[in-house]
Amino acid sequence: MADRVRPILVVGSVALDAVHTPSESASEILGGAASYFCLSAAMFAPIRLVAVVGEDFPPEHRQLLESRLIDLTGLQVRPGKTFRWTARYTGVRLETRETLDTQLNVFADFHPTLPPAYRDSKVVFLANIQPELQLEVLEQVPDAEFITCDTMKLWLDTARPGLERLFRRVDCVLMNDEEAVQFSGERFLPSAARAIMSYGPRAVIIKRGENGSLLFTPDRVFLAPAHPLETVRDPTGAGDAFAGGLMGAIARSGDGQEVLRRGMLYGSVLGSLAVEDFSVRRIVKADLHEIEGRLSTLVDMISLNGSRAH
Amino acid sequence: MADRVRPILVVGSVALDAVHTPSESASEILGGAASYFCLSAAMFAPIRLVAVVGEDFPPEHRQLLESRLIDLTGLQVRPGKTFRWTARYTGVRLETRETLDTQLNVFADFHPTLPPAYRDSKVVFLANIQPELQLEVLEQVPDAEFITCDTMKLWLDTARPGLERLFRRVDCVLMNDEEAVQFSGERFLPSAARAIMSYGPRAVIIKRGENGSLLFTPDRVFLAPAHPLETVRDPTGAGDAFAGGLMGAIARSGDGQEVLRRGMLYGSVLGSLAVEDFSVRRIVKADLHEIEGRLSTLVDMISLNGSRAH
Repeated sequence: MADRVRPILVVGSVALDAVHTPSESASEILGGAASYFCLSAAMFAPIRLVAVVGEDFPPEHRQLLESRLIDLTGLQVRPGKTFRWTARYTGVRLETRETLDTQLNVFADFHPTLPPAYRDSKVVFLANIQPELQLEVLEQVPDAEFITCDTMKLWLDTARPGLERLFRRVDCVLMNDEEAVQFSGERFLPSAARAIMSYGPRAVIIKRGENGSLLFTPDRVFLAPAHPLETVRDPTGAGDAFAGGLMGAIARSGDGQEVLRRGMLYGSVLGSLAVEDFSVRRIVKADLHEIEGRLSTLVDMISLNGSRAH
Repeated sequence: MADRVRPILVVGSVALDAVHTPSESASEILGGAASYFCLSAAMFAPIRLVAVVGEDFPPEHRQLLESRLIDLTGLQVRPGKTFRWTARYTGVRLETRETLDTQLNVFADFHPTLPPAYRDSKVVFLANIQPELQLEVLEQVPDAEFITCDTMKLWLDTARPGLERLFRRVDCVLMNDEEAVQFSGERFLPSAARAIMSYGPRAVIIKRGENGSLLFTPDRVFLAPAHPLETVRDPTGAGDAFAGGLMGAIARSGDGQEVLRRGMLYGSVLGSLAVEDFSVRRIVKADLHEIEGRLSTLVDMISLNGSRAH
């Protein structure tokens, strides 16, 4: 299997986060969608990162990324400060998020320029950034075979034409349920997913946090459970870690229906790890043995067998 | 199989409902948890109903119940008016409910008295009524083998000691996630389910509406998907119809893990039917062929196979 593993190209944010919960706080921690994605997907496949940081980016964060299968040739270092993001979570399960501050800094002028060695990438993840930048990446990967994009409400509100052009170019769209309803104007998810697929993608994945995620393909639906949580310390990055698990499975095993379904379970496992500690701390502590253990719990959660397989 | 099917005893409310949505209204329609439960479970097994109505109970509602496998010997008819309930649903998917009026009428003095022929019941569903009344039923079914109870926030707030005594006597507790969190004082569902099981039940089922339902047993968890909805006209009774599908499966096939898991899928099917029209109208239009069709969609939603089984 290992010689068939394809590298994954990812473009997205690398940030320094400050996160507050009712009982804890942390600041200057490694954040950004690409960070969570990379460190999750690198459990399964080599990663090619395209992102930007400032000259203040702490060496220990860079070293953490370098210590994994993550190629940093595409990580631009620019004069100025790294993208910074501050948020507060409240609610009994930290389910309510308030963004307190966003400082784009070097991210404001970011354009993704791929190193020559990245241009043969087959598996591509466009994390949540401006749709025009996501499209710029696609111009540079003519041989891409499976492209997944994430997005956010901001781009639905302010960059819909770019988003529509993007959706015509990708294989899989990741959204949460509110975004899917807003984008499509449909109240129910099956209709919303069909509306999104009408632009071209052959798969739409709706993320619903602790309620799991749904995969819509033209004639089937799959429900991936969330791993049953016993604790949440910092919900940041769960969706990006989910994408890392999913794309890791695709990088290893292709993009058939079975791989997408099982890949979503890997996504749920990585998402469950992400929330158990601040930043990427819990993700980088996990090994494949632990991941497979959580995966078997998820497989059992959707099994109709009377007794658990071992 | 048919000769092994056990009758199901159900106690609960039979009501006349008035329901308003932003686009439609209906009044004097058949409602009450026991009505939704009976007409759902009667697709699978004979039903023994214990409930009360007033002298104003419309003959056509009685005839509808009689036209199915529903024994009405235990349906008391008392001087006065039938229990009446009025509610309004709002929100893009009718997800917000406001109870506008509740008139207990003959239900205020209701005590469940079982006809002698009901007393050998093995499979029992205690729909959502006062815990003391649920306990009165259990005094009259010494041979019960599988008892499931539903409940509601009102009894958590006002009748907790009765609820705790009830939980010590039942095999399975049905709740929604907010109720489970409130009852247990635990923020996360696995801990909440363990706390409830510590009273005695060997199964706890958490209903989460369009997010499906979770079955907790001492060492396993199962996630039953909700059937993907394309329309909702009246959300009333979905949980009671779910219970009808579940208990119907148990009445036919026993109460092993596999039956509980598959029974929850039948529950999801009946719940999906319940919401597609006012009152029980859509449920009574369905036949077993349609139910099996929806069941196969749900089975496929949790299948890891690359292609759909037929």
